[in-house]
Amino acid sequence: MILVFRPRCTKEEIAHAESHLKELGFEPHTLFGVERTVIAAIGDDRVTTKEHLETIPGVERVLPILAPYKLASKELKSETSIIPIGGPGPGIKPTSNQVFIGGKKIPVIAGPCSVEGRKEILEVAQAVREAGATALRAGAFKPRTSPYQFQGLAEEGLEYLAEAREATGLPVVTEVLTPTDVPLVAKYADCLQIGTRNMQNFSLLRACGEVQTPVLLKRGMSATLEEYLLAAEYILTSGNKNVFLCERGIRTFEQYVRNTFALAVIPALKEKTHLPVLADPSHGTGVCSLVPPMTKAAVACGADAILVEVHPNPEKAKTDGQQTLNIAEFAKLMRELKPVAEAVGREL
Amino acid sequence: MILVFRPRCTKEEIAHAESHLKELGFEPHTLFGVERTVIAAIGDDRVTTKEHLETIPGVERVLPILAPYKLASKELKSETSIIPIGGPGPGIKPTSNQVFIGGKKIPVIAGPCSVEGRKEILEVAQAVREAGATALRAGAFKPRTSPYQFQGLAEEGLEYLAEAREATGLPVVTEVLTPTDVPLVAKYADCLQIGTRNMQNFSLLRACGEVQTPVLLKRGMSATLEEYLLAAEYILTSGNKNVFLCERGIRTFEQYVRNTFALAVIPALKEKTHLPVLADPSHGTGVCSLVPPMTKAAVACGADAILVEVHPNPEKAKTDGQQTLNIAEFAKLMRELKPVAEAVGREL
Amino acid sequence: MILVFRPRCTKEEIAHAESHLKELGFEPHTLFGVERTVIAAIGDDRVTTKEHLETIPGVERVLPILAPYKLASKELKSETSIIPIGGPGPGIKPTSNQVFIGGKKIPVIAGPCSVEGRKEILEVAQAVREAGATALRAGAFKPRTSPYQFQGLAEEGLEYLAEAREATGLPVVTEVLTPTDVPLVAKYADCLQIGTRNMQNFSLLRACGEVQTPVLLKRGMSATLEEYLLAAEYILTSGNKNVFLCERGIRTFEQYVRNTFALAVIPALKEKTHLPVLADPSHGTGVCSLVPPMTKAAVACGADAILVEVHPNPEKAKTDGQQTLNIAEFAKLMRELKPVAEAVGREL
Amino acid sequence: MILVFRPRCTKEEIAHAESHLKELGFEPHTLFGVERTVIAAIGDDRVTTKEHLETIPGVERVLPILAPYKLASKELKSETSIIPIGGPGPGIKPTSNQVFIGGKKIPVIAGPCSVEGRKEILEVAQAVREAGATALRAGAFKPRTSPYQFQGLAEEGLEYLAEAREATGLPVVTEVLTPTDVPLVAKYADCLQIGTRNMQNFSLLRACGEVQTPVLLKRGMSATLEEYLLAAEYILTSGNKNVFLCERGIRTFEQYVRNTFALAVIPALKEKTHLPVLADPSHGTGVCSLVPPMTKAAVACGADAILVEVHPNPEKAKTDGQQTLNIAEFAKLMRELKPVAEAVGREL
Repeated sequence: MILVFRPRCTKEEIAHAESHLKELGFEPHTLFGVERTVIAAIGDDRVTTKEHLETIPGVERVLPILAPYKLASKELKSETSIIPIGGPGPGIKPTSNQVFIGGKKIPVIAGPCSVEGRKEILEVAQAVREAGATALRAGAFKPRTSPYQFQGLAEEGLEYLAEAREATGLPVVTEVLTPTDVPLVAKYADCLQIGTRNMQNFSLLRACGEVQTPVLLKRGMSATLEEYLLAAEYILTSGNKNVFLCERGIRTFEQYVRNTFALAVIPALKEKTHLPVLADPSHGTGVCSLVPPMTKAAVACGADAILVEVHPNPEKAKTDGQQTLNIAEFAKLMRELKPVAEAVGREL
Repeated sequence: MILVFRPRCTKEEIAHAESHLKELGFEPHTLFGVERTVIAAIGDDRVTTKEHLETIPGVERVLPILAPYKLASKELKSETSIIPIGGPGPGIKPTSNQVFIGGKKIPVIAGPCSVEGRKEILEVAQAVREAGATALRAGAFKPRTSPYQFQGLAEEGLEYLAEAREATGLPVVTEVLTPTDVPLVAKYADCLQIGTRNMQNFSLLRACGEVQTPVLLKRGMSATLEEYLLAAEYILTSGNKNVFLCERGIRTFEQYVRNTFALAVIPALKEKTHLPVLADPSHGTGVCSLVPPMTKAAVACGADAILVEVHPNPEKAKTDGQQTLNIAEFAKLMRELKPVAEAVGREL
Repeated sequence: MILVFRPRCTKEEIAHAESHLKELGFEPHTLFGVERTVIAAIGDDRVTTKEHLETIPGVERVLPILAPYKLASKELKSETSIIPIGGPGPGIKPTSNQVFIGGKKIPVIAGPCSVEGRKEILEVAQAVREAGATALRAGAFKPRTSPYQFQGLAEEGLEYLAEAREATGLPVVTEVLTPTDVPLVAKYADCLQIGTRNMQNFSLLRACGEVQTPVLLKRGMSATLEEYLLAAEYILTSGNKNVFLCERGIRTFEQYVRNTFALAVIPALKEKTHLPVLADPSHGTGVCSLVPPMTKAAVACGADAILVEVHPNPEKAKTDGQQTLNIAEFAKLMRELKPVAEAVGREL
Repeated sequence: MILVFRPRCTKEEIAHAESHLKELGFEPHTLFGVERTVIAAIGDDRVTTKEHLETIPGVERVLPILAPYKLASKELKSETSIIPIGGPGPGIKPTSNQVFIGGKKIPVIAGPCSVEGRKEILEVAQAVREAGATALRAGAFKPRTSPYQFQGLAEEGLEYLAEAREATGLPVVTEVLTPTDVPLVAKYADCLQIGTRNMQNFSLLRACGEVQTPVLLKRGMSATLEEYLLAAEYILTSGNKNVFLCERGIRTFEQYVRNTFALAVIPALKEKTHLPVLADPSHGTGVCSLVPPMTKAAVACGADAILVEVHPNPEKAKTDGQQTLNIAEFAKLMRELKPVAEAVGREL
């Protein structure tokens, strides 16, 4: 930590700070500049918070040196982790194809926003597989802004998802909303999604850390990169190493999109963490016509996987129709995406 | 809903939209302008989402007319609701003084960020009561950005809070983090706080709707006014009418504060909802020296209550010390706040 | 400056950084931590930019210590400057009453967004004076988002303003848009306004620094506090000491207001600069009904002056009608504001 | 325009609004819903502003239907305009190669942030041409946040740029800061850049509209898409049709980058305007290591040209070194970019 003192701070304040830092386990180095005094405190920044040191009398600002996350850090492990999804598994899951997030191959996870019925999910699973998707995604538990909106089919939806996996071999990604549902969802799904509104639902993070099912952790709508990696750290420290990240757009002043798709976070995350990073251009833009170009952009800047909303008839979709591709649009995108992946040394 | 069509849309598209709107229960009125065609769809905007109608072929934009919340709406009830907190209560709560949020009198809820120990909370409760606070606030379950930080004393902390209430008569406000903890926290506390990170934790909102303990619902860090009132609507539709709101700062590009304290939301909310609105200048600024002036500003623009972090020795506080007033600063603020409240026709 | 090195940086990189810092006039102190190496570079942060030092090989981050502004800094002068506006002046200005920004008394500068005509400005000047305003504000040169909107009366408008001052004694504040207009506007006006879109129009800042007419410098829509004070520094270093600041709302994700009124910037600026700070609740909210409560809030948290849009008939105003008070609303606000000012030890 | 009335508005208010709309040239269609009354006003939204209609008594909200820009609109011209830069020109410009912005070929405009000297600019011009750049960019007039920073070589810098063009054949792009400098800069340069801080410097926009030199108009740091196209409209209505746009990052809460690179604006702009759109990944990220992946992303989502900062020795650059590629990095990027361009049907 670096402590910067106010101009004209007293000797007593500096002495007090030095002894307080020693108590906290830091080794203080005091430097007297022309206009300011600074203490460089050598030690572990993670135990004591910046906010705490800002309360020391005379201190104007505190600048942390170390990243506050450890297990998620690239310093721990320099190459990208590879997270397997699907395959033969415990619970009531039939066998599915195995997909790897973080390797040369870029998996495309596609499907409708919600599981709307048995027939519907079987149909769309078949269609996205034919168009080239390697995993199926659909929500059985839906977080909805309004209590008057469709809230999902719950366990019934999970059963249909398991059936769709059996029929197509596609591993299944689905959202979990509350800690008590984690064992239930993990029994059916190959990958648990933690949505943007739950990125700092710490009970849910811990509950997902207590199973071994892979976790897709979406970035919070206004999360800093540090908060995001600390959320991942909650899952990792609870015992589950199978975590991957997902940029899905942030909230800004922009209004022609539902969210601002902050793609630079992908290469930036890859400099700081070994966890793979997926891109969700459907939520990332919220506008159907922007999904194909932004999917290409995501692959071009290094996304390890793609999550995209697809529905046979978006106009009839119960949720998120305005940002959902139909089957033909998705198939076209898959064809166009292939050369982009190859241009950056990856494959679909 | 108002549907605006793209330039050069076809007659078929308009006819299709009209029949689709009728199926959804709307009465469509089509207006042909010089450059654009518009359909005004008379009906209930709340059942069908804007996003759904944007999927209709030829439609460029959809503009909703009605606010999507009902029970929280000022149209339902024009005067501000008055929410009682404390008094004799069920569970293992000793009797406390009763406080009313939403009336002429402005309650000041004060206390440390966390319950740090039995002795500590008794001492601070006594001190804030003497300085003029009318309710006590402290966290037993703490949502912390990092898994390496202090996470709160849990049920032990709740017991100390109940003791502090017995000793001082101050009703107690404390945070609940997860749906399964709601009955436990409600047994001890006079008011449940839902924190900013949980504003859209819909399971938690519903669980808090199933008890009758008053709920202090903090605004999400990047929540729109509509999302905020819909979060309140979740609690209200689940059966708990005792909800009040809290501006605690939003996330913007600003860096000299922890959050941007968006005080205009207070009079703006009062135009749209009958729920009372509290202000939290401690989180709203994140900087100790800004708390007193911004508390005065909050009262001047119509806040119904104040929530402020106070600790006998902020430098030793386990959490949030940098934004916490000490007892003397708090007592001074209370003295200075009184004439401001009176200047706007309120009292402390 | 504090330079933080990447983990596993080399000795050569550190040696190179040390010698580069010496060349730049810094005295480097190198500290080897367990995980990171840090160089504290003692010297003047203002000459060399943070961005420049970030290019040194091995450096991960650079943390500046000193504020980059000098003349605007509170370290230069600890009490608030008092800026006189009006009185007998050079140019073709008739004598007006003198008003002081930065003292105990809070001037209220009121008027329509634009000068719309001779009769109109005389009428509104008379009306706002009667209601208690101490200065008149109206635009003759208007910065408009669209080229199809009303662009102001230009010099004709300035003549009407001079006439209104003669008739009422109110000093006149008006906007200047381009460097070449500065001498013309300064000939007529008592105070030059630099609008939010021009906060970093450096040629205009310098041109305003070359006259002695006081300058009201509005905060840019997305300006950091540092950028804002550096913009003031441009005027100050060019020779004009009569500068005061103005919070007028920032751009965020919020949509129920035109801007987010970031009032905490007022006490925050007062900790960093001796320049007085005004508040503009009309632009700060963009919504007429929010102007009175937010004016009170601005005074409560320490604003040195108020700028408010007033028009006899906002419905007929050529610009900004939706955020403009009518005369009766303004008179009511003035009455209600008086006790708020007194409650915080100020007067109107 | 659509006018939505408050609940319980009066018949008189509606009648008044209808007659006011007729006076303004609109044809009002009044629709009485169950809870709200709405007037759809058929006519030209561009003459009367939304803000004006919001002042009509009883009106709660006004929703515009038409885009407020005309000449920039895709409705005027559906295919992308092609803007030629360079070639034989008036003034004292030697002949240069001609480059086209908006066609299949993607020009790459490269160079240092500032012209630092004669030798330096000749050297870098040669180097970027060899690495594949098709135009040269460098600033002679520099907009700097602090008055204490290097402000550029002014006309001397323009002379060096003209020399560099003569030596390499690369057309030259350089910034203009103030209206009075436009003729001077246009005499030397092939393309005038209007920087992000000047996007709403309306005098400068008009001055650039009065010459025929192509204009690169950067997006303002917090400009909405509509404000941006209206800024372009200022240049177009002043008589210069050679305008192209540039995404260079927006200001958000994110801190690991200098700006948030909002790439989805590229396909979004292409749906609304015929003006070509360039991407500036150097300012768009502000971080050297993020420039190559984000350049690829920009091309993948449809950018018509690339603007990138390159310097032989970024550590010695007078400005912006932290986001500047060196020659080897730039040459590598050009090699890697080629297959990405081809993958989306473009060429370098």
